[in-house]
Formats: sequence, structure tokens, C-alpha cells
Amino acid sequence: MDGNALTPRDVRDRVRLIRSGNVGPVVFRQLLSRYGTATRALEALPELVRKGGYQGTALCSADEAEDEIAGVEKLGARLLHFDEPDYPPLLAEVQAAPPLLTVLGKVAMLKQPAIGVVGARNASAAAIRFTKQLSADLGAQGFVIVSGLARGIDTAAHQASLPAGTVAAMAGGVDVVYPPENQGLYEAIAATGAIVCEMALGTKPQARHFPRRNRLISGLSRGLVVVEAAMKSGSLITANYALEQGREVFAVPGSPLDPRCRGTNNLIRQGAVLTEGADDVLANLPDWQKRPAPAQQQLVLERKEPEADDDSRRSVMEKLGPTPVEVDELIRQTGLTPEVVLTILLELELAGRLDRHSGNKVSLA
Amino acid sequence: MDGNALTPRDVRDRVRLIRSGNVGPVVFRQLLSRYGTATRALEALPELVRKGGYQGTALCSADEAEDEIAGVEKLGARLLHFDEPDYPPLLAEVQAAPPLLTVLGKVAMLKQPAIGVVGARNASAAAIRFTKQLSADLGAQGFVIVSGLARGIDTAAHQASLPAGTVAAMAGGVDVVYPPENQGLYEAIAATGAIVCEMALGTKPQARHFPRRNRLISGLSRGLVVVEAAMKSGSLITANYALEQGREVFAVPGSPLDPRCRGTNNLIRQGAVLTEGADDVLANLPDWQKRPAPAQQQLVLERKEPEADDDSRRSVMEKLGPTPVEVDELIRQTGLTPEVVLTILLELELAGRLDRHSGNKVSLA
Repeated sequence: MDGNALTPRDVRDRVRLIRSGNVGPVVFRQLLSRYGTATRALEALPELVRKGGYQGTALCSADEAEDEIAGVEKLGARLLHFDEPDYPPLLAEVQAAPPLLTVLGKVAMLKQPAIGVVGARNASAAAIRFTKQLSADLGAQGFVIVSGLARGIDTAAHQASLPAGTVAAMAGGVDVVYPPENQGLYEAIAATGAIVCEMALGTKPQARHFPRRNRLISGLSRGLVVVEAAMKSGSLITANYALEQGREVFAVPGSPLDPRCRGTNNLIRQGAVLTEGADDVLANLPDWQKRPAPAQQQLVLERKEPEADDDSRRSVMEKLGPTPVEVDELIRQTGLTPEVVLTILLELELAGRLDRHSGNKVSLA
Repeated sequence: MDGNALTPRDVRDRVRLIRSGNVGPVVFRQLLSRYGTATRALEALPELVRKGGYQGTALCSADEAEDEIAGVEKLGARLLHFDEPDYPPLLAEVQAAPPLLTVLGKVAMLKQPAIGVVGARNASAAAIRFTKQLSADLGAQGFVIVSGLARGIDTAAHQASLPAGTVAAMAGGVDVVYPPENQGLYEAIAATGAIVCEMALGTKPQARHFPRRNRLISGLSRGLVVVEAAMKSGSLITANYALEQGREVFAVPGSPLDPRCRGTNNLIRQGAVLTEGADDVLANLPDWQKRPAPAQQQLVLERKEPEADDDSRRSVMEKLGPTPVEVDELIRQTGLTPEVVLTILLELELAGRLDRHSGNKVSLA
């Protein structure tokens, strides 16, 4: 299915589907490949949820979806589907890539080679200075800088890369500027770069949204530079995503006496590239030039609707618990077919009873 | 030969031999093993120098040696020979270990487990603070701190380790305090720790002496911590010696904007342990406990005096140039016996025409 061929109804129902309760990127793709279109997936949803053991449904209504689409258009922003040619190709390779992005600004910038630059909100003056120099230097080498519009390092990275190209990934909706003092920077980025969001228009960013924003930053980037980061900070979460996604992680060293350097020093200890400037980044980037261009994402239609019976559901439930277990392991241990196990997991997830983890693991919510 | 059995004449002639021109640690041992005693080596020296192609001799006179011995005694210091039981065992294992040390203070402290702590003379206030904390913490864990009595990091390391034990290696004679402002610290170390020197009493430290002082610091230590160090600084020379000697190198990270952190960051990039405190040092020390205690150094007497003829000398000279070459390679390429080649090299070195390099390499001076 080519995104160019999406009808207004396809678009509306894809928006409805991804905004419905318990539909994450993995479920969205499963539903789309199983039912062929979002429209048919929406029709099937209530029954799947019911089988998963939940009575209510949290379907996004047609009105809500239409309001979002109209709002995006009014802003001059654009909805970008995972199977459209403009979808950023590096992000498309990421496991559970967002099926739908909202982009304000230059969509084409999302296809340029990019480096993520992130770090502490309460960064030191020296780190701010370093970030600006690094971002400008990488920009001069043709790299777009991706960051998260936060205070401190993020702000410095965006400011210094406005001339060469900058992309801000935000945790909330594309129209909700956070922090508010970055309104001016947001407008400048929208005018010369791009703002990218996974959440619906109008979404106020909450703590639980930030990991997905961080995953977007690393997913859009060939490498991630962490400038100053305390232990257990959001920047380290971004670094973990970068590693999961096979991106090179760069960390800037700092004094052991400064808690804002603990996280970055620890990254270096764990194998991140010690980074004193753009040269260290350029010298250690994976050789993307030599990689074959990733194929445009295509939806593989399964068109199968295997029915799962109650015995099978009981059997899968027995094997599940709070500890994440591999789906392959579940299939082996239950002796059921993969199709049946995947169907049951899909139902459970839609019912809000299943959590997905990296490494294709699942656990009871 | 046991150092306890040294007669006053042995001691005097050993001092004469090591203080004579072009007699370094390697030549000293070769001469001692060849001639059995320093007395006999001194008798043979003029003829060896002449064969090496040099007319004059720079023999240390008996008077000079006796003056040095008397001066050392008067200071309350002590001469320590490489084959005496009190000689620091870790240093004894080092290639070309100094055959003679002058020690002021507690000789026994040289046998305690030690960590070298070195760094920039113009260190930052933060690095000074870090050094004091680190040195005190390592002291509390039973380690003596070895440093070079220089300004900055060295001074901080000594000051903080005075209570637990500190050893200063100096570039000049044991009676020449450098820098002069450290006179008080020097006296405190002499009273509670130890001052160690390789050079003769009264020697004013010159630039060329410092690498040997640095080699002494690393040779006395199980590991070396470099706190702040610019590129091409003396601390990096010490780190190189430490690596040559098989010691673990620890480096403290710092801001890329501070030139005083360039050397340490670069050490980390090259594999030094990123160090934020004493825990990092303790967790990464080689497991010395499990090593067999090094055997007391014994002089292996060769008692051979192979004669080299002029053809052999020409043959060796032809193969030598300004580029260092391995002695084994010389032996192979000349087809001469090892004894003859070593004799010729000894003569050349005594004549001031040969330089020795690490890896058993030699070049024309």
C-alpha cells in the first residue's frame, strides 16, 4: 500500500486507529496487516478487545480524528504515515517506529543525515558553549541536528544549528510548545527546520511521553551525542534507545566533581565514544554511505484472521506473568501456532492487559 | 652478591661507576656482571671507552664518590643498591631499574603498595580538590601515594597523603628541593614518608632529568592516576612509562574546553581507566596479591670478557644509524655472536656514541 494512494477515509481511519486506546505502533501494524485497511481494523477492534477480556472500548471517534486532521492542516503541518515516501528512512528501520508523525516545517529535512545532540536541562555554561560549537561544526559538515527542545543543552543545540538545519522532536502535540519560554525557538525551527511529534494535536506533554520523544530523537539520527547528563537522566534513556537502534553513542567527558558529568562519564566507561568535538563524531560514525538504501516500507498483508479459542487463551495466560518473556518462548511452551499466539497477544494488548518490551518480549500489565 | 655484604670500597666504587660518564643502568649492570665488582669494572673502563672510539674519560673520582657518600650520611639519607633487600621490589622488576637510589626518610615505605598520582602544575582548583580526596581515600585503603613534588597536582597528592604515607621522587639530588616553595612539604615528607632520587647529591634538576624521575614514579607504583594533563605534558610521559612497565593507567576525565584535560581525555580514549574516584582505582588494579613475590634481584655473573676485533666493530657500526634498531636484529644481521655485539655496544655506549631505547633497541647518538 503506497501512502500516496491513501483516501481521505483511509487517513481518517488510520488516525482513529492509532489514537484509540492500547493501540501502539506494534498493534497498529499488526491490525493493518491483518485487516488490510484501518477501516476494517476499526470494525474488528471492539470484538478483539472483548476477547482480550475488557468490556469497554476507547475508540477514537471519527469526529475526533477529523478535528485533528483539520487542526493539522490549519497549522500548516502535515501528517506523515510510515508507508509514505517522505517518512524518514532511518526512523522507518527502527523496531516499532511510529506509524504516524505530525510534522511542522520542512518535511524534506527529515531525510537529511542527522546527528542527535542532547543533554542536561541545567547544563553548565561551558557545556552550553561546547554544544553550540559542536552543533555549528556538525552543521557545517552537512548534518542536521536533532534534539528535544528542552532547556539547556537541547536549546543550545537547536539555536546553533538553525542556519544549517535543525529538527525538534516534541513529547506532546505539535501545537503544544514546552517549555513555554522556547516559543520563539519553536517558531524559528518551524520556519527553517522541522518539528516532529508522535502524539495527537493538543496533547499536553506528560512524563510518560518523554521516553517516546527520546526514542524519536535517536531514531531520526545516525549518532547521538550526550553533552552533560546526570545519572538516571532522560538523556541516558535516549542513549539507551540509540544503542537499541544500532546508533553510535558519543559522550562528552567532564569533571567527576560535577554530577552533571556522571552520566556522560559512565557512558564512556561503557563504551561510548569519548567526544571532544565534531571530529570525534565524524571519525566514528557508522559508514552509512556504504549501506544499501533502506527499501521503502511496505505493508505486508496477512489477510488471515485465525480464531483463538478459550483453551488457547487460558494456555497463553498461564505462561504470562509480570516478568517479560519472549514471544517465541511462549509459542514453544504453549505448542500453539504463531498465528494463534499473536492473535491472543493482540487481543490482550488491546484490552490493556499486556505490556511490550524490547527484544520481542511481553508481560502482563 | 648480597648488598649486605658490600664493603665500603664496593660501595664507593659502585658510586664511582654509576656516576661516571655514559654509565646508565643497563651499562652498569653489564659491567658489574662482566667484571664481578665495580672495582674491577672501573679498571676496565678506560680501555672500553677507548675501543668505543672516544679519547677522554669522564670517570667519577674516588674523592667525588666519597664526598657523596659522606654527604648522604650527613643528611641522614641512605644509598640503596639494586641488589639490597630494601630495594623496592616493584621497581626492581622494571627494565633498566636504577642501580642506585638515594633515599631520605622511611626506606620501608618503598615496599608498601603504592599508587602514583600525577598531573598538571597549573591544575584547576577542582582538580586540586579531586586529587586531595582521591589521595586521602587511597591512603585510607592502605596505599602509599607516589608523586613528583611538583606544583599543582603533585603537591596536592603529597599533602593529602602525608598522614597515610607519601613518597616523593625527585629529578635532582636528594638535597636539592625543587620547586623551592615546596621546602616545607619536602621536610614533612622526609619526616613521615620518603624522598627518592636517582641522581647524585647536589644535582640541580634539569629538563633532561625529569623523564627519569617520571619513570621512577611509575616504577614504584602499582598503578598511575593522571588527574589533569595537557597534551605533550610530563604526566603523559609518566603514563607512557607506566604502560611500558605494565602498570595500570587511570585518567580523570574533564571538559574538552579545558586544555588541561586534553591529555587525560586522550589517555581514556587510548584505553586508560576512566577514573572518578578511589573506587575506580581499587576495582581496576592488577591482582598483585595473587602474583608470586618477586625474587630478590641477584647479579648474574657472566665473567666472560669476549674480545671484539675491528672488523666486528665496523660491521656493527655499518648497521647502526639514527633510527633505533633491535639488538637481536643487529646480532642476526651482522652474524656475530651475541657476546661480541653486546661488548661492542657497551663500548660505544660508554664512549657516548650509543643511545638506548625501550624494546631493547639502540641507535647512534
